[in-house]
Amino acid sequence: MPTATRVFNFSAGPAVLPLAVLEEAQRDLMALPGVGMSVMEISHRSKTFEDLMHKAQDDIRALAAVPANYKILMLQGGASLQFSMVPMNLLGAGQTADYIDSGSWADKAAKEAKKVGKVNIAATTKGENYSRLPEPAEIKLTAGAAYVHITSNNTIEGTQWKSLPEVGDTPLVSDTSSDMFSGPIDVARHALIYAGAQKNLGPSGVTLVIIREDLLQRSADALPMMLNYKVQAE
Amino acid sequence: MPTATRVFNFSAGPAVLPLAVLEEAQRDLMALPGVGMSVMEISHRSKTFEDLMHKAQDDIRALAAVPANYKILMLQGGASLQFSMVPMNLLGAGQTADYIDSGSWADKAAKEAKKVGKVNIAATTKGENYSRLPEPAEIKLTAGAAYVHITSNNTIEGTQWKSLPEVGDTPLVSDTSSDMFSGPIDVARHALIYAGAQKNLGPSGVTLVIIREDLLQRSADALPMMLNYKVQAE
Repeated sequence: MPTATRVFNFSAGPAVLPLAVLEEAQRDLMALPGVGMSVMEISHRSKTFEDLMHKAQDDIRALAAVPANYKILMLQGGASLQFSMVPMNLLGAGQTADYIDSGSWADKAAKEAKKVGKVNIAATTKGENYSRLPEPAEIKLTAGAAYVHITSNNTIEGTQWKSLPEVGDTPLVSDTSSDMFSGPIDVARHALIYAGAQKNLGPSGVTLVIIREDLLQRSADALPMMLNYKVQAE
Repeated sequence: MPTATRVFNFSAGPAVLPLAVLEEAQRDLMALPGVGMSVMEISHRSKTFEDLMHKAQDDIRALAAVPANYKILMLQGGASLQFSMVPMNLLGAGQTADYIDSGSWADKAAKEAKKVGKVNIAATTKGENYSRLPEPAEIKLTAGAAYVHITSNNTIEGTQWKSLPEVGDTPLVSDTSSDMFSGPIDVARHALIYAGAQKNLGPSGVTLVIIREDLLQRSADALPMMLNYKVQAE
């Protein structure tokens, strides 16, 4: 197969990127226009990089109609690191986080959260091999929970939330890695949305976090700097 | 300036990449030879990606003469996340870690470690604005310390260790971000070496960790999966 021959990829892993995007990335890999250096060679503190980052954040804000009181972060470590960062930042001592277990990825998120603090499995369909989402009546939320965690779609089982569960005033946290931007999303009904970029948004290696600003106050100063949403937002 | 004009960058941030490397990356960005997809579109679990990763690890092993009983990991989060991962994995309850403070980056590493466990500043030249390294006689190590941490070179102050401090049997951990592969390194005198790749090794976004295998036993199962050296090595 010649080098430039492209095949189409229908697998469940990283998605195909549009040809125009790859062509622009390819062109600029050698030297960003007007800069003379590759994006891999410039400082993340340089104006060029900050402008690129802000442009990407502005595009995401426009595309998903992200309200002004939400921060858009672009982090590393994938959704799997968010499994830990969410409870490290949002689950205070003595509090409980509710996890709705609708598939393998939801289960993984809950397992990592249990290493950090108290977790209540508010509903699970594991006993039915995750062949369906829990019914509203099956979901037993904790009064005053730190947050409710859902996985918007589990790629392995295909359990996708068509309408969000009712959680009252409790912050709703959603792992949207596998269906972010595959349809409209009502950001304002969420407190925090996270997604590995490689499925629908962009290249492998970037993780999108959209967080309502009031939640940033929960991030303790004692957290590792790199795992602290408040530090990352600043 | 035309798009393809390249300038040379002498700044303290990410380094210039060789033109041949950029050209190969540029060529393969659209489609890896024989694969038909960009490296940004393939699964990290695919044979293609694993082969690429293993090739890079083999090259690092050959270049730095890394002994067979060391694992080579390629992680995310930069040296700054290693400031936390090192004590999270290596500093057990009740143990002390010794930090030799020879500059701003050494100080940052110690500050993050203090969030995780007990830290002894074994020596510091902060009072002299880090104008020199501590003398051997000034270094007060803790008997039975979990490890001794140094920063092989502080980019801001230029305090570079020309010969490593004597630490006996205590594992020596070194942040080599700013001088890795700028000269020979005696890996066997270290227990763990970490380096953000962007200074001397490769593109921004990759962090190199070289860890002696016996240290992997210290990584507790209770650690977040993504921050656990043992899990990352498997």
